[in-house]
This record gives sequence, C-alpha cells and structure tokens, in this order.
Amino acid sequence: MTTRISRHCRATRLFLQPVLVYISRMEYKKRTVTCGDLRAEHAGMPVVLNGWVHRNRDHGGIHFINLRDRYGITQVVVDQDAPEATRHLAESLKMEFCVAITGTVRRRPDSMINPDMQTGEIEVAATGIQILSSCEVLPFMIDEETETREDLRLQYRYLDLRSFGMQHRIALRNQVSFRVREYLQNQGFYEIETPTMIKSTPEGARDFLVPSRLNPGSFYALPQSPQLYKQLLMVSGFDRYFQLAHCFRDEDARGDRQPEHTQIDMEMSFVSRDDVFAVTEGLMGHVFRSTLDIELPARFPRLSYHEAMNRFGSDKPDLRFEMELQDFTSFAAGSGFGVFESVAESGGSIKLLVVPGGAGYSRKQITELEDVAKTYHAKGLAFAKVTAEGLESGIGKFFTDKAAEIKAAFGATEGDLLLFVADSWKVACTALGAVRTRLGTQLELIPANTFAFAWVVDFPLFEWDDELQKWEPAHHMFTMPRAEYLETMEQDPGAVKGDLYDLVCNGYEMASGSIRVHNPELQQRIFDIVGFPREEAEERFGFLLKAFRYGAPPHGGIAPGLDRLLMVMTGTPTIREVIAFPKNTQGISPMDESPSPIDADQLRDLGLMPLPREDATGQT
Amino acid sequence: MTTRISRHCRATRLFLQPVLVYISRMEYKKRTVTCGDLRAEHAGMPVVLNGWVHRNRDHGGIHFINLRDRYGITQVVVDQDAPEATRHLAESLKMEFCVAITGTVRRRPDSMINPDMQTGEIEVAATGIQILSSCEVLPFMIDEETETREDLRLQYRYLDLRSFGMQHRIALRNQVSFRVREYLQNQGFYEIETPTMIKSTPEGARDFLVPSRLNPGSFYALPQSPQLYKQLLMVSGFDRYFQLAHCFRDEDARGDRQPEHTQIDMEMSFVSRDDVFAVTEGLMGHVFRSTLDIELPARFPRLSYHEAMNRFGSDKPDLRFEMELQDFTSFAAGSGFGVFESVAESGGSIKLLVVPGGAGYSRKQITELEDVAKTYHAKGLAFAKVTAEGLESGIGKFFTDKAAEIKAAFGATEGDLLLFVADSWKVACTALGAVRTRLGTQLELIPANTFAFAWVVDFPLFEWDDELQKWEPAHHMFTMPRAEYLETMEQDPGAVKGDLYDLVCNGYEMASGSIRVHNPELQQRIFDIVGFPREEAEERFGFLLKAFRYGAPPHGGIAPGLDRLLMVMTGTPTIREVIAFPKNTQGISPMDESPSPIDADQLRDLGLMPLPREDATGQT
Repeated sequence: MTTRISRHCRATRLFLQPVLVYISRMEYKKRTVTCGDLRAEHAGMPVVLNGWVHRNRDHGGIHFINLRDRYGITQVVVDQDAPEATRHLAESLKMEFCVAITGTVRRRPDSMINPDMQTGEIEVAATGIQILSSCEVLPFMIDEETETREDLRLQYRYLDLRSFGMQHRIALRNQVSFRVREYLQNQGFYEIETPTMIKSTPEGARDFLVPSRLNPGSFYALPQSPQLYKQLLMVSGFDRYFQLAHCFRDEDARGDRQPEHTQIDMEMSFVSRDDVFAVTEGLMGHVFRSTLDIELPARFPRLSYHEAMNRFGSDKPDLRFEMELQDFTSFAAGSGFGVFESVAESGGSIKLLVVPGGAGYSRKQITELEDVAKTYHAKGLAFAKVTAEGLESGIGKFFTDKAAEIKAAFGATEGDLLLFVADSWKVACTALGAVRTRLGTQLELIPANTFAFAWVVDFPLFEWDDELQKWEPAHHMFTMPRAEYLETMEQDPGAVKGDLYDLVCNGYEMASGSIRVHNPELQQRIFDIVGFPREEAEERFGFLLKAFRYGAPPHGGIAPGLDRLLMVMTGTPTIREVIAFPKNTQGISPMDESPSPIDADQLRDLGLMPLPREDATGQT
Repeated sequence: MTTRISRHCRATRLFLQPVLVYISRMEYKKRTVTCGDLRAEHAGMPVVLNGWVHRNRDHGGIHFINLRDRYGITQVVVDQDAPEATRHLAESLKMEFCVAITGTVRRRPDSMINPDMQTGEIEVAATGIQILSSCEVLPFMIDEETETREDLRLQYRYLDLRSFGMQHRIALRNQVSFRVREYLQNQGFYEIETPTMIKSTPEGARDFLVPSRLNPGSFYALPQSPQLYKQLLMVSGFDRYFQLAHCFRDEDARGDRQPEHTQIDMEMSFVSRDDVFAVTEGLMGHVFRSTLDIELPARFPRLSYHEAMNRFGSDKPDLRFEMELQDFTSFAAGSGFGVFESVAESGGSIKLLVVPGGAGYSRKQITELEDVAKTYHAKGLAFAKVTAEGLESGIGKFFTDKAAEIKAAFGATEGDLLLFVADSWKVACTALGAVRTRLGTQLELIPANTFAFAWVVDFPLFEWDDELQKWEPAHHMFTMPRAEYLETMEQDPGAVKGDLYDLVCNGYEMASGSIRVHNPELQQRIFDIVGFPREEAEERFGFLLKAFRYGAPPHGGIAPGLDRLLMVMTGTPTIREVIAFPKNTQGISPMDESPSPIDADQLRDLGLMPLPREDATGQT
C-alpha cells in the first residue's frame, strides 16, 4: 500500500498551487461518521465525513478522493451528479487538505470492491465539500519514512505523525500503557505519582537541574528514576506501587539515548525475587496477549549471569536462536599454538563458536567478524574450517591430530567454521558473543515476530577496581546480597552474589531490578566495603536511611523501560520511533528548537549569569 | 477510632527504649495472608502475617497486638500457650515495628467480636514473632493529623503517609486516575505522552527552566501545560488525546499552590463545545460512580459568565445552596441615600443579598462580613434589618416607604437581614458573592457529600486595559470567538464572547477549556486586536502557527485538575493532602531538603555561575 500511496504523492505534488477556493471554516459540517465506519449495510445513508485528503484522482472528470482519519480511509466520489460548486471544489483539493464531505453512502460496483480496505465495499457520493484547512507543499511525502532525513521528520513531527507507521506505534504505545495499568491495578498495585522536582543525588548519569527562583542558589533535580521515593512508599506501607514514570538523564549525545524516557516503575513489600518475577511475567503476558495477540510462556527461563555470559557471551542474550558459545580451553594445552597455551595457563578462557556452513567464508568475511570481536576488546579472532578430513586453514594445523575429537565434542560437521577468542573469561565471552549476535542477523537465524524473554540473575554485587585498588558496587549500593553471603560478605566481597536481576528479550535489557537493603546496619556494611563515606551517604541519601529507622519493610522491585518495550514490540531500530515528540541525539527538538536562549531577565531572576567564556570548561 | 489509637500511642511512647531483641531479617517468614483477609471461615488455618504493630496491649500477661498493613488490621494474641521466646518478643514490640507473625486463626469469643473491623470475628494465636525492622521514637502520633505542624508531617512524610487519612486519599487518587483512563480509553482517546523538557514560551506564570549542558546558554522549560503539543497532536490526526499530565508553574509562594500539579489534559478534533461537555460529564459521572458510589446528573447546568456573576457573585459559583444575589439598582433613585443614587446614576449596580434570619446579627458580625466585601474591593457593606413593621437599622430609614414593595420583590420576611454592595457591576457582584460564600459556611447552608457541578460559558474574549489603553486577551489568545462575532470582531472587541468554558463544582474551578483557533488568518486577527507583535508570535509559537498551515483540523479541549478534583472529592482544605510528596508553600520539600545547593562543578558544566550579590534583583 505504501508504494502506491507514494507514487500518488509524487504525482499530486506537481499540481500543487496557491489555494483559490477557501471558505470560512467557522460553521462547518461536523462528521456523523468516521472514515472507518461505513460498510455495505449503510448504503443509502446520508453522511458527513471529516478528514484529510489522502489522495485525489481525476478519472475523466470524476474525482476519487480517499479521505483519511485516525479510523480509516473512505473513498469519496465526486461525479457528474454532484453540484457544480462541489465538482469545482473537488478539483482544488490537494494532499492533506482538511475537509468536510457531505454525501450518501452507496455500494461500490462489484468490480470496484476493495477487500483490503475496511470500507472497501462502499463509497460516498459527495453532494458537498467544505475546506476546513488547506495544506502547503509538504516537506516530505507522508509514509515515505525511509527516504526522509530524521531531523526533517522531527522538524515537521506533526506531519510525520500522520504516517501509518507512527500512527500505529503511538496507538500501540497507548494500548500497552493502558494494559500495563489494567494488569497492575488488578494485581493490587496503586499508581502513585512521585515528584518531578526532587533533591539532586547524582548517581550513574548526571542530573538535569532546575534552579529555584524562590530559593536562589538552590536547585531541584529531575529524577533519574523515582527509586528513593518508591522505597519511601514502601516504608509508608503502600505495599504495591507502580508508576509510568518519566525519568531524566543528562547524558552525552550518543546512540539511542533520550534525555527523558518512561519506565514502568514497580515496587513491592514483603516479597522475594520470585514474587517480582511472577508479577512481571504476568504483566508481559497480559500486554503481549491483549495488544499483539501473542502468547508468551507463563514463566520465563532463568540464567545466571555466569551462564548467560558463558553460553551467549552477553548479559542480555538473544535467545531467539541457538548457536551457543562453547569452551575450548581444555584443548589448548599441548596444541603448540602459543596464544592459546599461554591464555589457558594464565587462567583465561578460549571460547568457541561453531558456525554452521561457515567453511565457505572468505578471508574478508572473517576479517569483518574479527573487527566485531576487536570492538569488544578481543586481540583477535582465530578460526579453522571443518572439512571431511579434519581442520584446515587458520589455526587448523595445530589441531589436526585432535580433529575428530574436537568435531565430536563441539558438534561440528563438515562445512562448518570454528571461531575462537582467547582472553580473560569476560573478554572472551563478550567478544565472541558480539560475533554470535552479528552472525545471528547475517545468517538469518532469527525468526520473525518472536519474543524470547529470560531472566538473568545472580550478578556479582562487588567488582574489584584495579585502578582504585578497591571494591566498587557492580550495580549500586542498595541491593540486598543473596542470603547465603550475608554472614561472610566482608571476607570475600568478590564472591557475593546480589539479589538483583535483569529481564532480557531479543538481546535487549528490558528491565532491571533488585531486592533492596531495608536495614540501616546492613546498608552501612555495604557502604564500608566499597568505602563510601558516611558523610556523603548522609548528605545524599540521608532521608532514605533515616526512613529505614522507622519500621521499614523488606521490599524489592523492577522497572521495565516502556520505550524499549515498544521498540522491541514494533521491531523499530530506535526509541525515537515510539515517542511522539523525541529529541535528536544532541538533545534538540528540531520542531520547536528547544533548548533555546532565554531572556537575560529570566536568568537574573534565578540568581544566575552565564559563565564568562574563558572560565568555561568543555565549551572551548 | 482515632482517639483510642492516640491514647495508646501516648502510652507506648513512655516505654520506648533501645531495641534489645533483633533477629536477622534476611530469611524471614513471608506472609501467607494480608491483615485484611481473615474471616470466621478461616478458623484453624495456620498463617503468616507481615505488618506493622499498630497497638500492643498487655492484659495480665496476654499481649493483644493489632497488626496493620494496607489491607486492614488483624488482632494477634500472644497468650500463655505461646512459646516462651515469642512471649518475650511480644513484650518488646513497640509501635510501628515491622514484624512477621506466625500463628493459627481462631474465632474470637462471642463477647470479643468486633463488628466494626473486617477481621473482627477472628484473632490469630501467635506461635512465632520475627522483628523485621524496629522503629525509633515517632516524631508524631500517626493518625493525629490535626495536632501536628504541617512541616513536621512533610519532613516525615513516609510516616504521615501511614495514617488512615493519607492512605485513603492516595488510594482514592489511584482509583480516580485509573477510572479516568478507563473511561477515556473507552471513548476512543489515546493517552499520549508529551515532552517534559520543552521550549520556553512563558505565558501567565513563569516557566521553570532547565539549563542544557550539551547546548550551553540554552534552556529547556518544564511545561505549564502540554497545550501546544496537544494541539499539534490534533494536527497529526490523533483525533482524541488525553494525558494525566504533570504541569509546572514557577509562582510566588502563596496559598494552595504547588510547583507541580497534575491535570487530566484532553483534546478532541472536529468537535463543538457540546461534544467536550458530553465527554467531560460522562467522565465525571464515571469517576464519581465508580469510586464514591455517587450518581451525578447526566448533564450539568450551564450558566453564562454574566449569569454566574449576577446571581452568585462568582465565575465559580457554589451551587450547593441558593441564597442568590439580587439586583437592587432600580430602588436607588429617589431613595435619598446618596451612595446608592450616585452609583446607579453612573451605571453601576447595587447588589442585594437577603440573609434569612439574619436580623439578629450584631454590629460585630456585620463588620466581619463587611471586611470580607472590602477584601474584594467593595467600599462598604450596607445593611438593613427586616422587621414586622418594615426596614430598620443601617440604611433602613431611606427605604421605609418602599419596605413592603422591597420585601415582596426580594422575598424577604421578618427577621431577615439585607446586605448591599453598590459599585461597578463586577465589584458589586464579586464582593457580595464573597459575603454569600462566607455566609454559606457560617449558616451551615451547605449539605454534606454534595457535588454541584455546572458549566460557566460565554466569557468575554477581550478586556479593555485602562492602564495600557488597549484590548487584552481576557484568558489567552488561542480561543475561538463564538461564531456570531466572527464577522464583526474588530468593530466591538468588548462584545465578543469566546468559545471557552469552565467546569465548576462547589465553588472551585475544576477545569478550563476552549475551542481553539486553528486558522492562521483568524489567529493573526486576534493577535492584531490585542496588539501582539508578529515577531514575538513567530518567536514563541511559530512552530504551532506553522503547523496550522498544513491542514489543521478544528479542535478543542479541556483540562480538569486532578489535584483539585481529589481535594473536592475528599473535602480536604489543600491539595497537599492529596499529593504523596508535596512541597510546602515555599516550594521546599522538608523531607529531602530540596531544592538544595549543588557542586560548583555541576554549575560550571552548565556554563553558569551565581550572580554576584550586588547584581541580584529581588534577593537583597
């Protein structure tokens, strides 16, 4: 359909001209039906339609106008029987004019019935046309998304949003949001609004700041998440909280980031990880069933962080296809291949990927894959080709005597390609995992319309920072250690697994959450392990730590990203495609040109002035 | 109930002491039921409850613990049959400790059944207690709201939120929000999120500003409302939009203002005022029916602005009681009372309020009412008392000969008090309207649990500004004039009625809305009448005006305030009572002490520095 519309758009563009016929739209005929309503049974009914001119074809003096609104498209016919003035107006209608059409529904001749259109059985014979608004020459053809620069689409977002794609995605976002609320309400969650202007407690990303005019020199921050407030709601006894919360991060311009995004923020009291999982699984099941008519598994598989890395080379594995990483380390010793031998001896890992039918890969193709591995800090990507005789090319020669054993151990058969990364366990897994992901797409291993959810659990709580020579929180400091590590946490911080978890789907992290520390003494032990100063804790989180001294319940939660969820559901490459009015990667809205300079008075009222140029950092 | 709990709180406070018994809460007994679940039929069932110690009474060595959670209160009994350790722990339980109780449900003896409690038929005989969190000495007794300074409540908001009142109001807010969404979804509205960081286009109030680090010297604004964006969504063809939108206004500290509030923001295409009214009436009907079980009228009465002022002395009249203002102007001439005569001659109005049974009012009581009138710019409040003989006291003597006629004309009878304000029509109405409102409360004319909704319509579009000697927009510049004024708007701007409307209830403005101008030429005519410079229009609203050149549909909307709605529904005096984490009147959150100073580095990164003290305005 897109193609046909596009062709039409180009054609009509040729005859766009200044609007001559333009009536007052103050007293206009209001619609009696929408453009998606009419069926064969309505034949004979007088109707008024309001909508946009989607196409207007002239076939020998008869005008066929496709009139569009949110609900559908209805074909309007202005033929010889129409009043003279109406026929004249029909000629002047250009693309995207907003009009009111008066007419009568009639069945189309059998040969003209369009089974692809909901209203394809009928047409409306026009007896009157009112132009409600004219339309200037379009900056781009609506529905030709791929040909249009994104910044131009964002500049004319109100036109871009008329496209079928954007209409569908925004409609789906609305449905998903409502179904989320419906499900969580039914599960006894209260949606509670937390403040947008809060105390600045930067962690991870930078806070956006809001200067206070009433309290000069003081600033609010926009929340990176409602984390502290939702925990306070648990202290307040609200038991089950959620919010479709707007979150803000002042990050550097890169990739698919937005200064604001929405998360399905949830928190529950008196729960374990399993309770959080059950609610989240139920939520996703309800959303996919009610909006996409897709049945997800009742329970999602669980992988430990170690297993996810080891088998898929990622803490957000794409489980839509197999082709798992395997461990080749035990074959290194005695092979004579020095790189492998030294890695194995120093406690590193050699990870292997068997690429089915990959023996035919050219040197260039393999180099491309090696570049992927190197992006993830691998020093190289070794390979060997599996032949009937054994292993050839690359490092095959080091393993000729063990070829049969290797083929059996790793399930490789003639025509396969073996790819190896030897490095520290984490680098070997991550780099070969990235190669796996690339091959998944390249080899078309990924089935369409499949959503492979899983839980990744048992992340380490602390990581040793070589540079600082101290333990650092692997995620953040408010996660409960798994119960079995509580007694001995200080003795071996590196072994401690935290009660935190990620929900992943199709290679994306969809949500992150944890069971929280609710006990001030335990919190202090964690602060002590990572050397977080008491004064700073008091300064930044004091109000939360204080609240925990007044009967705080055990609690935990999770926060699926709504934008990410919609992006995965619609298969679009960026979250900008599922946000009505996004910013570009520079944090700019080309439509309204925000951010923008302000009056000197406004700044002065805030007790601020621009930093003189020579003092400014990062701006020179 | 409050009183009994309070007494208990004071008592327990005396024996608060350092917690001695404190077990690990890492592996705790998770609840099998909530504190609101158990009934007689559960007798014999072993259960685990998690919750807060609401009260703990010791009756001869038997502990009666009222355990509370969001769902209710369950009585736990620790008697002689309980294990020694459990009995010992029961003794140590202070108010608001968070605990896990293991035990068995049993029917209460008939004499102990409490029909006022949902769980009043049963109690739980405890066999085990775990302390999950202890609680320090409470800063105030929960549920004794009236005795606690508001700033102390806000400082410990997490404790204040445990009170029955706050729990109820936040729960109701959640229900109302969901019912709003449910209704509007069913009416075909899409909830669409508009950006929180937008272009600054200050109008009315000041914008809160957010400095951009990536674009130094440029600022985002937080939206005072999503007005421009929702209109753009209509241009995009979304047809019916709503959003529970967070709105921000940087206003001076006064009264019942919050820097952020929530509105039920709605916009519809191809509609007239009547369509907006029907949706709003349906919405309010659904909300009140589903949350308070109150049936509102299917249609709300409509008053013109003039009628509302004339009859009730307010553009947000309280229609829960009658006692309407009446017009006394025609009685002024020839009365000999100079004040009335000169007001009537100069085209002013004399408004009259008949106060039933008010003849007994003391001079002091009348002076208090006069002070109310003067607050609203009246020069005074004249009065007369209705006796069997005629009119006495105050200005009665000027009207003795017309007493009978006056009594008949205004429905006054012996024992009533007549109150008069003579001034310009608007001042006379407003001042006497304020007196009416005061008397409505004072005379207890206002029935409880009544919600008197009405529409106020036909507001003037332009007002003459004596100081500037020009026409100013009475509300804003984007409202469509009523159709009958379109041709002649420029000839008599003062006569033009706008297609804007207010929803009022119980003396509050609940919502404001209008049919918008969607036609660039008409918009320009309005800018011209109020002398709004084209360049400024282009600078501030250019992107909206540009969008209107691309086939904008006729559209209109409304935006009921969610906080105000909840305040009226719950009969609380401020919106702070229906917001989980409000700011105080100075825009400060005493709990987290926001807004707060930031690091010099953070400010420097934004390209800003504090204004030197001597340059600062409004801060000296």
